[in-house]
Amino acid sequence: MESASGSNAGPEPGDRVRVERGADAYEGVLLPSSTPESVVLKLDGGYNVAVSRADAAVEVVESDTYDIEGAQDVTGTSEITFEEDLPTVSLISTGGTIASTIDYRTGAVTAQFDAEDVLRAVPDLAGRANYRGRVVANILSENATPEIWRELAEAVHEEIEQGADGVVVMHGTDTMGFSAAALAFALDIPVPVVFTGSQRSADRPSSDNVMNAVCAIEAAKADCAEVLVCMHASESDDRCALHRGTRVRKNHTSRRDAFETVGREPLGEVIYDGGETAVSFRRAHAERGGEELAIAPELETDVELLKFTPGTGEALLEACEGKAGLVLEGTGLGHVHTDWIPRIGGLIEGGTTVVMTSQCIDGRVCDRVYDTGRDLLEAGVIEAEDTLPGVAKVKLMWALENSEDPEALMGTPIAGECTERSIPWA
Amino acid sequence: MESASGSNAGPEPGDRVRVERGADAYEGVLLPSSTPESVVLKLDGGYNVAVSRADAAVEVVESDTYDIEGAQDVTGTSEITFEEDLPTVSLISTGGTIASTIDYRTGAVTAQFDAEDVLRAVPDLAGRANYRGRVVANILSENATPEIWRELAEAVHEEIEQGADGVVVMHGTDTMGFSAAALAFALDIPVPVVFTGSQRSADRPSSDNVMNAVCAIEAAKADCAEVLVCMHASESDDRCALHRGTRVRKNHTSRRDAFETVGREPLGEVIYDGGETAVSFRRAHAERGGEELAIAPELETDVELLKFTPGTGEALLEACEGKAGLVLEGTGLGHVHTDWIPRIGGLIEGGTTVVMTSQCIDGRVCDRVYDTGRDLLEAGVIEAEDTLPGVAKVKLMWALENSEDPEALMGTPIAGECTERSIPWA
Repeated sequence: MESASGSNAGPEPGDRVRVERGADAYEGVLLPSSTPESVVLKLDGGYNVAVSRADAAVEVVESDTYDIEGAQDVTGTSEITFEEDLPTVSLISTGGTIASTIDYRTGAVTAQFDAEDVLRAVPDLAGRANYRGRVVANILSENATPEIWRELAEAVHEEIEQGADGVVVMHGTDTMGFSAAALAFALDIPVPVVFTGSQRSADRPSSDNVMNAVCAIEAAKADCAEVLVCMHASESDDRCALHRGTRVRKNHTSRRDAFETVGREPLGEVIYDGGETAVSFRRAHAERGGEELAIAPELETDVELLKFTPGTGEALLEACEGKAGLVLEGTGLGHVHTDWIPRIGGLIEGGTTVVMTSQCIDGRVCDRVYDTGRDLLEAGVIEAEDTLPGVAKVKLMWALENSEDPEALMGTPIAGECTERSIPWA
Repeated sequence: MESASGSNAGPEPGDRVRVERGADAYEGVLLPSSTPESVVLKLDGGYNVAVSRADAAVEVVESDTYDIEGAQDVTGTSEITFEEDLPTVSLISTGGTIASTIDYRTGAVTAQFDAEDVLRAVPDLAGRANYRGRVVANILSENATPEIWRELAEAVHEEIEQGADGVVVMHGTDTMGFSAAALAFALDIPVPVVFTGSQRSADRPSSDNVMNAVCAIEAAKADCAEVLVCMHASESDDRCALHRGTRVRKNHTSRRDAFETVGREPLGEVIYDGGETAVSFRRAHAERGGEELAIAPELETDVELLKFTPGTGEALLEACEGKAGLVLEGTGLGHVHTDWIPRIGGLIEGGTTVVMTSQCIDGRVCDRVYDTGRDLLEAGVIEAEDTLPGVAKVKLMWALENSEDPEALMGTPIAGECTERSIPWA
């Protein structure tokens, strides 16, 4: 970066400075709106702070770190102040329709955005929390990968470690459920981690952008410590549902209320009445602060999901030879064509962990009822109980890397993804 | 077969005979309950007919065709008579839980069962229709194949050709929707073809066997000419839903009301009130007799369905090289990871017809919205509109064999499987 204004004569706008005054200390970028009376700093979270020069010590940390010219319009008009009595919510962007409304500042030192960027994108968020922002990815969510899930888990972990009272992850809707499940397995969390997104972009009158963002922020402040998905609960703009991240599915290509908790009521909801909001939970959930923050983000990525349908040849199964794991989406209670069973047995003998789920989506697999199922169990196939197929894939990736007995883990709920078998379907 | 009683002295019980009397003619097996006054025959449909010997001509068609000893208990006590004023419903069995209640007669000349077998299995069917039965397969439905769909289509065609006023297909529930779709594409029908099955076997108190069978028979008599799926509409024993065969999905592994019409109301329902029934339709449907019977049962079987989920490697796509057709179950509006697109383009260049559907299940694919989709369209991927993924696989099998322009056909409704694009999701 050019250093035209760089000199040792004293702090210049654009310099990163540290200001100490009495017991307070601030570090940030010196803004041109500083006056002879006060030093105005942009803090890393995007908030502007004005500190009286009287008795203040101003020290240059790094010269000319910030392209103040390019950002002038923005920084010069900031009126956002940090409010001590509001919780701090960290916003993490991964891309997708909702994130496309945030115009990341060119020239920023790191891939971060700040409170000002957030409020410029969604002014309705003002006054609900202090915001902090970071960019983990900028992708359409069909391009999400286990590697991005790992980075996302680490970013969320870091934000909570640094004091965030809740985290909102802005994510494309296509694979939001997969990412939410990945975080639910990778993290133990004492605060809510709330995924939200948008089915309609902000330039359309029917956009769900604002309401989803507002409700997600409110959910992130709630007394909860789960990975949630917060999206429209109906075609009206009246409330968002709060889905458990391991039980949610995008069940419509385009509706704003596309997301559903499979086979149960959502955990809770956020009423949205012209900006007035109310968060409530109707089912048992982990409470804020009940668990210590912890992270286990590594995944075995050599895992496939294969859906069996009539007429499916064996070439697809052959392609799974040597894989670490395979999740089958069988028919009904968890079946495939009888011809597949010896080959599946071969995969298992070759070291592949094979897990059965059902393409019915709802309901529990139960391979003890019919011959096909019993033969599958005998071949060594593991039942994923009522785990959703996509979630079972993410869980198997996690279990193979983090558990000494991944097979036993697949039938045991660890993040609300399945329920223990009680009475089999009667 | 032993011919101990075979002689040329005259017809003996067990012989297949033809009886002509005035304008009437009957062919069937001579029963021991024949008397000097009347000839008692078991017709092929299982009905017993007594014909006065006065002025009757009895001719042996084939000696000793039927093991009358083994069947004595059954045939000797038959009280089932053909009733002229009832419609004739043909029951076709393919196996599965519902068919397991029918104890196929050993010693039968062909794989058929008759009215007596049907009524012994489900006495509640008595008086609702004259029955005719045949066995097309005796498999668990996860073992259904395109070859069995073809045989089933031919059997249904034959039954209707021979005068059935409606057809009921007893089928395992796992792949019932696939078979129903296959018949909907293969046949033009002037009468209803109603699939039914059972989620709980007859030996369990919660069995749905009887109610589903009764409602299916009533639906087969209705003013309709569609391939329907008739299964419990709720967890109560109060009604069955009538789903269009190309829009139905088994959405629960074990519930009796597992079947749902995706994204719409079912076509109609059969109220079931202690055996009293009432069929009604609430949506437009093809009417009885509106179409000539026709069949086009051939299928291109070299078609796969592949579901894309995050982290899916390219090995599965590679396994589809050289296939005639491939249905992709993409994310959201119809997306896959960007890395897949060049390889999909390669498949298409190699002659594979590639069709996009969505794992959301409900809603229309629309690949003109985001970059990924536009790139897929540019590579030559065909959109299946709002066709269900499994149904799209069956349709592609049919289209590749029966259409000169299968690609155009995939976006055009031919059996209610999709709707024309009107206003794209707005």
